[in-house]
Amino acid sequence: MTGNRVIVYKGPGQVAIETIDYPTLELPPEVVSGLGLHKSAPHAVILKLVATNICGSDQHMVRGRTTAPVGQTLGHEITGEVVEVGSDVLFVREGDICSVPFNIACGRCRMCNEGKTGICLNVNPARPGAAYGYVDMGGWIGGQAEYVMVPFADFNLLKFPDRDQALEKILDLTMLSDIFPTGYHGAYTAGVTTGSTVYVAGAGPVGLAAAFSAQLLGASAVIVGDMNADAAIDAVGFEARGHGDGALEAPATVLNDLMTLSRAGAGLGIPGLYVTGDPGGIDDAAQVGQIGVKLGLGWAKSHSFTTGQCPVKRYNRRLMNMILADKAHIAKAVNATRISLDEAPESYQAFDEGAATKYVIDPHGMVLA
Amino acid sequence: MTGNRVIVYKGPGQVAIETIDYPTLELPPEVVSGLGLHKSAPHAVILKLVATNICGSDQHMVRGRTTAPVGQTLGHEITGEVVEVGSDVLFVREGDICSVPFNIACGRCRMCNEGKTGICLNVNPARPGAAYGYVDMGGWIGGQAEYVMVPFADFNLLKFPDRDQALEKILDLTMLSDIFPTGYHGAYTAGVTTGSTVYVAGAGPVGLAAAFSAQLLGASAVIVGDMNADAAIDAVGFEARGHGDGALEAPATVLNDLMTLSRAGAGLGIPGLYVTGDPGGIDDAAQVGQIGVKLGLGWAKSHSFTTGQCPVKRYNRRLMNMILADKAHIAKAVNATRISLDEAPESYQAFDEGAATKYVIDPHGMVLA
Amino acid sequence: MTGNRVIVYKGPGQVAIETIDYPTLELPPEVVSGLGLHKSAPHAVILKLVATNICGSDQHMVRGRTTAPVGQTLGHEITGEVVEVGSDVLFVREGDICSVPFNIACGRCRMCNEGKTGICLNVNPARPGAAYGYVDMGGWIGGQAEYVMVPFADFNLLKFPDRDQALEKILDLTMLSDIFPTGYHGAYTAGVTTGSTVYVAGAGPVGLAAAFSAQLLGASAVIVGDMNADAAIDAVGFEARGHGDGALEAPATVLNDLMTLSRAGAGLGIPGLYVTGDPGGIDDAAQVGQIGVKLGLGWAKSHSFTTGQCPVKRYNRRLMNMILADKAHIAKAVNATRISLDEAPESYQAFDEGAATKYVIDPHGMVLA
Amino acid sequence: MTGNRVIVYKGPGQVAIETIDYPTLELPPEVVSGLGLHKSAPHAVILKLVATNICGSDQHMVRGRTTAPVGQTLGHEITGEVVEVGSDVLFVREGDICSVPFNIACGRCRMCNEGKTGICLNVNPARPGAAYGYVDMGGWIGGQAEYVMVPFADFNLLKFPDRDQALEKILDLTMLSDIFPTGYHGAYTAGVTTGSTVYVAGAGPVGLAAAFSAQLLGASAVIVGDMNADAAIDAVGFEARGHGDGALEAPATVLNDLMTLSRAGAGLGIPGLYVTGDPGGIDDAAQVGQIGVKLGLGWAKSHSFTTGQCPVKRYNRRLMNMILADKAHIAKAVNATRISLDEAPESYQAFDEGAATKYVIDPHGMVLA
Repeated sequence: MTGNRVIVYKGPGQVAIETIDYPTLELPPEVVSGLGLHKSAPHAVILKLVATNICGSDQHMVRGRTTAPVGQTLGHEITGEVVEVGSDVLFVREGDICSVPFNIACGRCRMCNEGKTGICLNVNPARPGAAYGYVDMGGWIGGQAEYVMVPFADFNLLKFPDRDQALEKILDLTMLSDIFPTGYHGAYTAGVTTGSTVYVAGAGPVGLAAAFSAQLLGASAVIVGDMNADAAIDAVGFEARGHGDGALEAPATVLNDLMTLSRAGAGLGIPGLYVTGDPGGIDDAAQVGQIGVKLGLGWAKSHSFTTGQCPVKRYNRRLMNMILADKAHIAKAVNATRISLDEAPESYQAFDEGAATKYVIDPHGMVLA
Repeated sequence: MTGNRVIVYKGPGQVAIETIDYPTLELPPEVVSGLGLHKSAPHAVILKLVATNICGSDQHMVRGRTTAPVGQTLGHEITGEVVEVGSDVLFVREGDICSVPFNIACGRCRMCNEGKTGICLNVNPARPGAAYGYVDMGGWIGGQAEYVMVPFADFNLLKFPDRDQALEKILDLTMLSDIFPTGYHGAYTAGVTTGSTVYVAGAGPVGLAAAFSAQLLGASAVIVGDMNADAAIDAVGFEARGHGDGALEAPATVLNDLMTLSRAGAGLGIPGLYVTGDPGGIDDAAQVGQIGVKLGLGWAKSHSFTTGQCPVKRYNRRLMNMILADKAHIAKAVNATRISLDEAPESYQAFDEGAATKYVIDPHGMVLA
Repeated sequence: MTGNRVIVYKGPGQVAIETIDYPTLELPPEVVSGLGLHKSAPHAVILKLVATNICGSDQHMVRGRTTAPVGQTLGHEITGEVVEVGSDVLFVREGDICSVPFNIACGRCRMCNEGKTGICLNVNPARPGAAYGYVDMGGWIGGQAEYVMVPFADFNLLKFPDRDQALEKILDLTMLSDIFPTGYHGAYTAGVTTGSTVYVAGAGPVGLAAAFSAQLLGASAVIVGDMNADAAIDAVGFEARGHGDGALEAPATVLNDLMTLSRAGAGLGIPGLYVTGDPGGIDDAAQVGQIGVKLGLGWAKSHSFTTGQCPVKRYNRRLMNMILADKAHIAKAVNATRISLDEAPESYQAFDEGAATKYVIDPHGMVLA
Repeated sequence: MTGNRVIVYKGPGQVAIETIDYPTLELPPEVVSGLGLHKSAPHAVILKLVATNICGSDQHMVRGRTTAPVGQTLGHEITGEVVEVGSDVLFVREGDICSVPFNIACGRCRMCNEGKTGICLNVNPARPGAAYGYVDMGGWIGGQAEYVMVPFADFNLLKFPDRDQALEKILDLTMLSDIFPTGYHGAYTAGVTTGSTVYVAGAGPVGLAAAFSAQLLGASAVIVGDMNADAAIDAVGFEARGHGDGALEAPATVLNDLMTLSRAGAGLGIPGLYVTGDPGGIDDAAQVGQIGVKLGLGWAKSHSFTTGQCPVKRYNRRLMNMILADKAHIAKAVNATRISLDEAPESYQAFDEGAATKYVIDPHGMVLA
């Protein structure tokens, strides 16, 4: 095992497959030096990827809308088989098939203790929170690859109870690493419950997962465009556009629409990504993440807003239970499509062009057809 | 009882005392026609004002920053003695001294049922939520007056258990109608609890009440300017300015500062008023209530935001208990100062010029010196 | 309109239909004298019954297990058409078809304000909380009748948006007055959510409604007898028995079983009725409502317990939304069966003998076949 | 370092100081064999005790009311200085002074992830949850000693920010390991908030800590014997007695009194210990932990109950903040008294005889006088 094939960002609009070193049980240099931790990671495991998805937020990098350097490895939606365990890994074993939350978290800090794994304090010297294969998120190697290292494995991994069952439902289970909990987080923090009317902005994979999650939470109606939604979910984020041919980018338009559409007292869940720096933003303000929000409108309606990365661990176990009980066919809801690692570059292209598809990379041919 | 002296807005920078009709047990014409309700209000009472405060949000009108017409009556911080009760008032009696939430609420709609009295559906044809003596809030007569009508009295009134005790503590108890619950709402919705570090933006009466409330909720530190606050409260609102001589109005500056100052995962309570229309706003966007929010920053830190009017009923009983148990000297915290009705116009002026004072109008000389 | 036919308790094992006075807009004498309220009730309405169900808790009275006097009127599961409104009723009108929570509540006291309508302070001089047609619950006339008076109607009534749609779905909607919210309350307060494993004790109508509600709340498995339930619901109450032929009454057996079956950290919802006095109890302790609870077992597992009457208003609107959206076929789940008023006595008998049926009385022939 | 002096149970009414082996970075045999874990514990640290308290629950063992064997080591209220760290300990260092929650928890299981560290699944083969120096709690060596091993140290330890400040306030900070969070948990789960009236049953150290915590949470009145408490806390547990000379043990009397005293809708927090087996119980039922609870009374009042061990980690950081900010003088509230290790046996005796004192053992003379 001397190499590891991984998807790499090669410049605006370009990705490629490159071979890098096989992963080791060690923290990335950025974390070691930035946080003063020792390099060895007895709490880590190596996973052989079983399924690893292309995410809409990868596209922000690939489109050149971030400061990601050429050579940035990609991939944070990871499901894999444990092939090597560190000496302080007690509760997962070789051969276990596990889902990995895209948030990397130590399990030992105040934020992790409060369930806020999306803003863990010990995995990224730049700021709270980290992810695999993402710019400004700690320097962790991406998981659109053959193998990947997962730190704090007892804490981060969600083990599937049965290997055969897991492989059988892998197209559903692969959604537990990001998109399904992220959509659920949007619906949950918007306060969706039995009998709610829910408006979802955005019909990409996260929007579809949010709509599906709203159903799971008991919504009586999940709609687009209604004027009296109890709850609303922004599944678009900062690259929003107006409607119609030639519509310009309008970064606050989704959020402002949600405040217009929702009833007084509504909750707004905002899993859609907003950034602190956007080199390609429409104006000076947008380039530093400042956008024109109709705050007076939201205030007049006593809206409440929940922002930020989904803390995947808060939801992935309950959603796994639904998949395993045959009550959540999320793969179908988001139109999951299996591809090989070699097909990833063309799929990035297709996704960027609007393919209504959630691409699931199958690097080792383990996903059942 | 043929008249009622009341404070009236007379144009930018001007208020005066005028005599209008003594109140009746009837709904205002705006509500009757707009919502199709019958005029008689057997659920209402007439109160003789015992104390009625000048509020910072009155100043928005008096400064000409709203669409309030000349002749608008003022006053929504009302404490009074019941002098007349309608035929369907069962649980308050003549002679009771009561606090009135500034939010008018029917007690019978879905929002009231969920405790969201700030956005009651049945008291303002223009939009959810109403208040006494305020533009765009339903046409209810203001309470900076000798007498005032309070509808849905069994629901809206908080009766003090003992008349003599109430008069003795009236400078504290008068804060229950708005400022104390509003400050508490800011601290509560920001998630302040035992051991929190809290940043409060704004040192006016609401800011002071928020700081005081943060102490009641168990904060270990309540500070200004710290970079690691657990919770933060915007007690300023849309008329915010930058710092230093000649600083310009900057409507989003407080909110953006709070996102900068607060730690990841913080809650932000926003009792400070943001408006949907501001004729005097700094630019076209601000004039329709759209301001440049650094949403990317808040998103990166997974902040949550609670906006809107405080639903006073949610808190006024618990805060009354603290005052009556001698554990909350809120009058001292906000520098309450008793004035006569005739002194109101000059006090408006002094308050606008920055007097660090909460003016309490005593129309009938009932407040103990 | 000179009379009103109503079901009356005539002694252990016996009910009959008797004609009493047509209802008036007045409070019952017990409430007027006990609480010092005036008799006229301008806040009340008269309903013509559309559907009114026989409840398992009626059987406690009919079996002679309570202190109900001969002549006690019965019926607290009420759905009807408004035929007369008081002068202070603003938001329901003649012809509206409405569901009535079995809890009578004033909408004006501290408990109602906190959403705890099951323990309203102003409707029963004997203790907090009241109901129609029930011993020790305030003296309110029962609703297994042709007509019934409902006080504080704007607060208590849940109006259906469309009359024809309501009549079409009436067998589902009639469950909103008690059994559906009560089952939902059991599941909700047990903490059932997406992916939960739930154990329900009791397969009578409330147990079936609890199981159905657990599904609505997203349970991945709802089972009997499993040893690792996340959440558990006691839908039996104090008349529990052991298993097998000749099994004796064992009032704590269900609760103790739930503590045995449930995992550590589970929540237990207890909508099943436990009483303060039980003349027919198995021993001196049981006769005063004291039973042998394995509290040490629950404590060792850090269980939490929620007891008491369901506050119907907390849930009935969201459940109505589900019925109207065709997402909750509760009538089928509890095997609803339409009967005439005249068939009620024989149905009481059949229900007591174990008929797996929820009887819905249709006094005016308005329920579609 | 060849030995470790520790307090040991020697039979009913007797404790002694014995010398055992100096601790190693290894799991106890009971956990290794029962749960199939490997023996080495790179996640553990060795602490030199700075302060270690005698707890009322130790007395249950010393009085012979449990199945603790002769030789059982004692002590679970531990504060110490880190003197050795395992290879996978990243966030505490030698010389740090830390508080140890009495609950041992792995930080890696579902229960820990939900904040329920009192019922961790991986530290006790007998059942969920473990503690140091306690019968039936996993075989972990007690901390009324000179040195103690703490597993999963990054997760379990609460590090004090400043060593000198910590030593200065050590009599307060030592209460963070059990009594202060336990009292706070009782008050918190009973729903105590601003303006609550609170009844506390039991004036031992936990009762005093609960009363103190109720003040921190904003109670307007904390009393004994009132008939209208909003919230109530059982700080006694199963060894309760009736009142007066010669009163017999009555294991449910405190709980039944709380239901009588508290208002409808109250929450009851039950940090007082109830057991599954009590060889010295008053009757057959009590000996298996089954006691006569007036459940009907609680049900009629819609009470809710929270039982079980306090999950210390949920609260210890916030309480530490209060101590360090000079806002919580808990040592004074519970009458903390410093003793040497050699004085421990006589202090056990004095505590059993009713000394109104919280004994703090100072094995190394590090506590400032």
